[in-house]
Amino acid sequence: MSEVYAARRTRLKEYCNAGGSAAALVSRPANVRYLAGPAPRGAVLLLGKTEDLLVCAGPIEGRSAQERPDEALRVQTLPGTGGGDPAVAAAGLVAGQGADSLAVEEHHLTVARHRALGSVAPRLRLAGLGCAVEQLRVVKDEEEISCLRIGAEIADQALGELLESILVGRTERHLALELERRLVDHGADGPAFPTSVATGPNAGRPGHRPTDRRVEEGDFLSVCLGATYRGYRCEIGRTFVIGTAPADWQIELYDLVFAAQRAGRESLVPGAACRDVDRAARQVLDSAGYTEGLTALTGHGVGLEIDEDPQLSPAAMGKLDACVPVTVEPGVHLPGRGGVRIDDTLVVRPEADGGPELLTITTKELLAL
Amino acid sequence: MSEVYAARRTRLKEYCNAGGSAAALVSRPANVRYLAGPAPRGAVLLLGKTEDLLVCAGPIEGRSAQERPDEALRVQTLPGTGGGDPAVAAAGLVAGQGADSLAVEEHHLTVARHRALGSVAPRLRLAGLGCAVEQLRVVKDEEEISCLRIGAEIADQALGELLESILVGRTERHLALELERRLVDHGADGPAFPTSVATGPNAGRPGHRPTDRRVEEGDFLSVCLGATYRGYRCEIGRTFVIGTAPADWQIELYDLVFAAQRAGRESLVPGAACRDVDRAARQVLDSAGYTEGLTALTGHGVGLEIDEDPQLSPAAMGKLDACVPVTVEPGVHLPGRGGVRIDDTLVVRPEADGGPELLTITTKELLAL
Repeated sequence: MSEVYAARRTRLKEYCNAGGSAAALVSRPANVRYLAGPAPRGAVLLLGKTEDLLVCAGPIEGRSAQERPDEALRVQTLPGTGGGDPAVAAAGLVAGQGADSLAVEEHHLTVARHRALGSVAPRLRLAGLGCAVEQLRVVKDEEEISCLRIGAEIADQALGELLESILVGRTERHLALELERRLVDHGADGPAFPTSVATGPNAGRPGHRPTDRRVEEGDFLSVCLGATYRGYRCEIGRTFVIGTAPADWQIELYDLVFAAQRAGRESLVPGAACRDVDRAARQVLDSAGYTEGLTALTGHGVGLEIDEDPQLSPAAMGKLDACVPVTVEPGVHLPGRGGVRIDDTLVVRPEADGGPELLTITTKELLAL
Repeated sequence: MSEVYAARRTRLKEYCNAGGSAAALVSRPANVRYLAGPAPRGAVLLLGKTEDLLVCAGPIEGRSAQERPDEALRVQTLPGTGGGDPAVAAAGLVAGQGADSLAVEEHHLTVARHRALGSVAPRLRLAGLGCAVEQLRVVKDEEEISCLRIGAEIADQALGELLESILVGRTERHLALELERRLVDHGADGPAFPTSVATGPNAGRPGHRPTDRRVEEGDFLSVCLGATYRGYRCEIGRTFVIGTAPADWQIELYDLVFAAQRAGRESLVPGAACRDVDRAARQVLDSAGYTEGLTALTGHGVGLEIDEDPQLSPAAMGKLDACVPVTVEPGVHLPGRGGVRIDDTLVVRPEADGGPELLTITTKELLAL
């Protein structure tokens, strides 16, 4: 892995040099991890003129081999019990090395921290690094995709086991916790995001937080979960019906959302505009009259964070590349009645390679449980 | 509750007016919750010249009564599917109302968001609100302390049940998940922070993240958990020995950390300097030769966040007031051997009221499990 991290840092340095900054300070945790490997909380990466340095507030010792940063990096741990800010320490170091400008992540540093950097190194010009690291992260290598694939398998397993158990009478909160336990059972680092379980009138609500409502006969039950595996986060969402047979309105609504989700999936080709993927899914719901209450996104990138670029939305710019993992997750929620969400994680692949690779393979038939 | 929120907002406005800003924008989530009640993710609170306004990116509808913001507040939800920034929208609104300055939370807003506020309202002077809301939050009212007390009871229950079960052979990860499930079983909103379970050589490591290591005979087992109840977060940490009888070194180390923790607890009186509380605990460990590897803090405030002011550290400024809940949590970790942490949540009370109120009442005897 060390070569992979080094190659990523080289690409970023080329970008910085082209922008006129010899040095860069990466502070956003997922970006630090991308360029340096797993690091203690609050660690920052300094890409210097002559050397790269990971500045940590806490110790590396005691961390398991899998939780250590790139061993090729020099690590500096802040001394004492002062609780200092690694970013400020890094700015002091780079100023001491004679750098005249430092590119920083202005979308991550707060105004107060930025000012503290300026105070410790008043001659250092603080430039903006923009979202350069986030942009590097969009296209994944096969190692990263393999982590997502394993995470998706874990989520599929956890969900499959839940479906075999008795659901009626159990609360949303308990089902969510059980899913999270099963994710860890099957080898996840942990859940990729707070697991959402929504029953009856809650079903289909985007980002629903589990309540004490119990599963009842006739309910829609929608579930959204994901596993983190070696830092990579995937997502799956499914909707079921509780009882022997779904009602007609449930079948109709399900078929509609299914059609929208399929349209989104089928439009995932390298070169497709992100807004066109969004439109493909959205117009199926639109043309059935569900214009109100749709979410801002019908999908998004996943990776070291659960919500990354690209965004699949009406206002999105940019096009999809091969090897970009995204979710496709349209849904409809009818206030007071419930609704349907269907959510997959897929990797954009050229048609010659078989088209989009579905990572979350749990069936999308409407199951009556 | 509505009067409580209104009174808090009034206090903040008095502070802002004294600082020369007629309007303030609160964006840090715990601060928004303190002043406005539970609000959707990303919501910001605008304290205007004439009216207070909660600006939300997501809908309030569908939230349970307990998850809704103060009903006396006017709520504005951003329209459409644009995914706009409520802080930017609020700055535009207040500029439109003719305000000339706006105090913002520079320790929360990123440089990029701050710039976007400036762009949408170029004539608005952006001042600093400092940590004014955090300072208001330090001293709790009895309603807040009651939430912490219930949270502590829940954590005590979850921990007590775990101790009755068989531990040998189970992994740190599973024990942590079981504790979290039990927290929710007993009525917590969720864990107050990621539950830490550490066995053998991991025991006593501050902030240890659970691994697949299994509990073995003769291990130290240290556990740190907390419940969130109505938004308020408490913390308890205990260390046990697995097996019939602890070894001599384990008893010695335990007694030492216990003495340090007791010294910290006993120094919690209104008017005590925070650094003196830290020193009381720290010097017990220091004088036994454990100067290396001590954590930066021996305790911290708790409330809507798990780590709030005051900080109990050598460099801390300020004094304790009555009705301030803090943790006291010294520990020692011996690399390769393990260690001991003991952690309570207490409320500072005057001696006339019986001295510090212990919220986490699980025994601190060295139990052999």
